[in-house]
Amino acid sequence: MTKSLAQTLEAIKPPSQAVMDAARARQDILTKPQGSLGQLEELSIRIAGMTGNPRPKIQHKAIITMAADHGVVAAGVSLYPQEVTKQMVFNFLAGGAAINVLAQHVGGRVVVVDMGVIGGFEPHPNLICKMIDFGTRDMTKGPAMNRQQALDAIESGVEVVEVEIAKGLDIVGTGDMGIGNTTASSAICAAITGAPVAKVTGRGTGLGDEQLAQKVSMIEKALEVNKPNPQDALDVLSKVGGFEIGGLAGVMLGAAANRIPVVIDGFISGAAALIAAGLSPTARDYFIAAHLSVEVGHRVLLDHLGLTPLLNLGMRLGEGTGAALAISIAEAAVRILDEMATFEEAGVSEAEGEAG
Amino acid sequence: MTKSLAQTLEAIKPPSQAVMDAARARQDILTKPQGSLGQLEELSIRIAGMTGNPRPKIQHKAIITMAADHGVVAAGVSLYPQEVTKQMVFNFLAGGAAINVLAQHVGGRVVVVDMGVIGGFEPHPNLICKMIDFGTRDMTKGPAMNRQQALDAIESGVEVVEVEIAKGLDIVGTGDMGIGNTTASSAICAAITGAPVAKVTGRGTGLGDEQLAQKVSMIEKALEVNKPNPQDALDVLSKVGGFEIGGLAGVMLGAAANRIPVVIDGFISGAAALIAAGLSPTARDYFIAAHLSVEVGHRVLLDHLGLTPLLNLGMRLGEGTGAALAISIAEAAVRILDEMATFEEAGVSEAEGEAG
Repeated sequence: MTKSLAQTLEAIKPPSQAVMDAARARQDILTKPQGSLGQLEELSIRIAGMTGNPRPKIQHKAIITMAADHGVVAAGVSLYPQEVTKQMVFNFLAGGAAINVLAQHVGGRVVVVDMGVIGGFEPHPNLICKMIDFGTRDMTKGPAMNRQQALDAIESGVEVVEVEIAKGLDIVGTGDMGIGNTTASSAICAAITGAPVAKVTGRGTGLGDEQLAQKVSMIEKALEVNKPNPQDALDVLSKVGGFEIGGLAGVMLGAAANRIPVVIDGFISGAAALIAAGLSPTARDYFIAAHLSVEVGHRVLLDHLGLTPLLNLGMRLGEGTGAALAISIAEAAVRILDEMATFEEAGVSEAEGEAG
Repeated sequence: MTKSLAQTLEAIKPPSQAVMDAARARQDILTKPQGSLGQLEELSIRIAGMTGNPRPKIQHKAIITMAADHGVVAAGVSLYPQEVTKQMVFNFLAGGAAINVLAQHVGGRVVVVDMGVIGGFEPHPNLICKMIDFGTRDMTKGPAMNRQQALDAIESGVEVVEVEIAKGLDIVGTGDMGIGNTTASSAICAAITGAPVAKVTGRGTGLGDEQLAQKVSMIEKALEVNKPNPQDALDVLSKVGGFEIGGLAGVMLGAAANRIPVVIDGFISGAAALIAAGLSPTARDYFIAAHLSVEVGHRVLLDHLGLTPLLNLGMRLGEGTGAALAISIAEAAVRILDEMATFEEAGVSEAEGEAG
């Protein structure tokens, strides 16, 4: 049943320009000055193009939150003990985490996936097990995972999103949990964008100045030790990535292959998007940037991807929390396109003179 | 039954610091790094203080959209014919406008108020009539309204929001409709903030360069002719304001007097907020700035009010559209505060070393 990555990449086609034109034509006859809903209008047009439907609807929504552990935690890059990854997965399953609250607020379901948490889990009806290994290895000493594991992580992500699509899915958000995963994400960001490590490395869950300097130096060491090839996204993922990051890249590619808009959460999801876009530049056309994280590398990464974030609320939690809020904005956008009256239907006069 | 403005102003008290402290203490033990939900955390704490409830709930939501006409349209400041104000009120009542779609999306009701639309309306079950006059007079030739009308407009707004509070209201958004009302709003903004007219005057629904220059010159003329006193908000409203702007200022004051958070939409609502804050500086503590409009004066106005907008989506429609989206963010914020598990409840380890 598992599709090969090559098959998934092959299935990714550009959004429909004809459908985008039709959506734009409709936006322009709705009862408002043209362009007055700004990014909502543009987003609705993009989603029309992605889905191939000039009046798309968003009913079924999911946030796929993937968890894994990171060997680099041994190098002292996080304030939180590593077992928090596992504890937070239990919190997701119990419904007590921020992502549970926000997903429920926007009417979406949370899909929790173990991509490789240390110790693993007993079977649980709401936990999907795609465990690659019990955490990655310490990337300051060698590759975080081997190339086959990187491929497996991505293909697992494709599988997860395709199961959700079969259940009914109009938009998907990405989310992450993994103590140490801002470190892996900064390494990916530096490797792929070419930006200096210090420019793309932030305080994660709250590091002080000295700890931040330590984190930067560990990432520099990991890049030096592994020399990831920026032209080969799978190589970058395997050397300095993480299992949840690979899984999320797979979710993004699987969504794009099935013409489903994918809302990219924050910095860790953004690193996954760098991997996904490295494998398929066309997949980017299906990406919606949820928000601008306070994590410093996030803007560098979004600029590299050519994405404009919808929200800027000073958030830096991950889990898919930004994606959840942005899914609600996306739903608002397509509802505007589909549900508003036209000038003719409402008997409202249009602008005089130049375009109103 | 009508409360005097003086009674309303008297009833406005500062938010509770003790309740804000309690809300912040709870945010800090929820299962996330402290501060990692950024503005959502701050907003939930503010709303706790406003409502006096350390775990506030937002269930009943309304957008109050007020419409009126503006005599200054005779001076050629808008691309749209004046009858669009009335046509759009019918569109609101029929459910076809952007505000209807977005209010429904966020689970809020739309309350449509005629504050002074030319020609008036037949009675309609969903239209509240608080008509002051059939449009203001041309402010380039003298005061837009007299002082008693300005007072009546504000007191009517208080009455409208208090009727909604009696029906059940946890948060209220403001919205406007009125061809010509960016002109009045720019005049109010220049008068109260002291900024040059050209710095606070934008293209409204889509003016070209020449038309924009004409609009600036008409506003300068109105300020010259009327000399509004910036220390006297009622004087500013009467000389260069509008009936819907006065009504919205009343909604804001009435909300503050009843400890209800009020979400200020865009530029026109912002001008109303300048009037309201001029009458009661304490009322500002109950204001939530929904978004940053592309209308150029908006940032000047928000800075003057000391408000940080939640969203920046390139919107400039009015009607309460930005407020509707921001109400959903506010609801997300209070749900986080109320519904998330604590570290202790979830059995999740806290950060080591400095504040996580």
